[in-house]
Amino acid sequence: MTLIDTHIHSEGRSVEDLRHMAENGIKKAITCAFYPIRPGFPETLIDLARKLTEFEPERGRKAGMEIHSAIGIHPRCIPPDWQRVLDFIESYSGYVAIGEVGLEDGSDEEREVLKAQLQLAKKLDIPAIIHTPRKNKEAILEKTLEILDAVSFPEELALIDHNSVGTVRVVLEKGYWAGITVQPGKLSVGEAVMIIEEFGDDRLIANSDTGFSESDMLAVRKLHDACGNERVVRKNAERFFKI
Amino acid sequence: MTLIDTHIHSEGRSVEDLRHMAENGIKKAITCAFYPIRPGFPETLIDLARKLTEFEPERGRKAGMEIHSAIGIHPRCIPPDWQRVLDFIESYSGYVAIGEVGLEDGSDEEREVLKAQLQLAKKLDIPAIIHTPRKNKEAILEKTLEILDAVSFPEELALIDHNSVGTVRVVLEKGYWAGITVQPGKLSVGEAVMIIEEFGDDRLIANSDTGFSESDMLAVRKLHDACGNERVVRKNAERFFKI
Repeated sequence: MTLIDTHIHSEGRSVEDLRHMAENGIKKAITCAFYPIRPGFPETLIDLARKLTEFEPERGRKAGMEIHSAIGIHPRCIPPDWQRVLDFIESYSGYVAIGEVGLEDGSDEEREVLKAQLQLAKKLDIPAIIHTPRKNKEAILEKTLEILDAVSFPEELALIDHNSVGTVRVVLEKGYWAGITVQPGKLSVGEAVMIIEEFGDDRLIANSDTGFSESDMLAVRKLHDACGNERVVRKNAERFFKI
Repeated sequence: MTLIDTHIHSEGRSVEDLRHMAENGIKKAITCAFYPIRPGFPETLIDLARKLTEFEPERGRKAGMEIHSAIGIHPRCIPPDWQRVLDFIESYSGYVAIGEVGLEDGSDEEREVLKAQLQLAKKLDIPAIIHTPRKNKEAILEKTLEILDAVSFPEELALIDHNSVGTVRVVLEKGYWAGITVQPGKLSVGEAVMIIEEFGDDRLIANSDTGFSESDMLAVRKLHDACGNERVVRKNAERFFKI
């Protein structure tokens, strides 16, 4: 059995944790860029991108897990002179997506940074993992969708993540892929199963968002055990990320 | 029971791991600066120092562990324009030591960076955690001692770490503190006990070096269980680091 956890922060997990995930079938994962304090410099995120594409996959291999990387600027980690990070990403390779990006509060700066990153992903023709926040999820999602529209972002390249039961419909109706994050504080296994039953498994992709905080590393496995669906825990991720 | 692990890389451990350590008595630790790829920029190490003094202690609190920080430039992580990192450290506060610093191969650049960091620690009157490498430990220790001599580094501020059975004597005879790292590939619990029995517990300080690689998080607890010595697993660390 190979399950894919499409949104983790492997940096927050020990190598023993990654092995525990792999031994429970989660043999592939995508680790997403995030810096747990607001960085003072764009260079920090450039070295982070190098760390995520060089060191974390190596640590994954030691644990029996194939780790792919998403690099970019999370809305809570916008450094000064952030365009430098984007210039680096454009010149770089070895990652499968831009992410995680998105809006947290929806400030002008956040919207500008998201827009620039979506334009870059479109230009590079690679997927974007787009975060939605815990607070004001529906209102912030609306602002996010406006930016996707404004840059005519290709639907097949957008994974809008951390959906609630209430946001899945609009994401799928707009033609995007919808991430369902099974984690305390986000979706329970039961809610995720309900979403799959109600909306079908065509463009749903599961993840745990496990990382720096206490979290359930085996969430994707538990979802698989509960519903037996192969698309949401593997096949859709293979297709969307080409992994 | 409170044990102190004086050399960890908490970044490589999940919050659940830190709680596991705390629940086993390791309620205080010092997390040491290290970047797992060679950083391309000094700014990366400046933000790392901020992360180690802001975010990691907060993560420790959530796990029931008091985390203190050592900041500096590890010999495997020397960025270009490294003096900028030292200028930042001099202007900064909230850390208990410069570390980990030291020599890995003993190159001219490594020696220059170590010397500058020792001069800074001396000027600031704070302890330095000084790494010794796995390879050529005795020869590299000799070069390290030469630099300590050259800057007239105060003996009571130097903790020379990762000693082998063969290096403890010279470190103690020179008047420095000696770190004993209990970890597969470094010292076994039995070897550490032997060192304590042979050299006394006056200036020995235990640690695990647990971090990014697979490692025994409970090493300091196991040493305590094996020998019952309170100085090596707590009291000496309180005195040396003033924690």
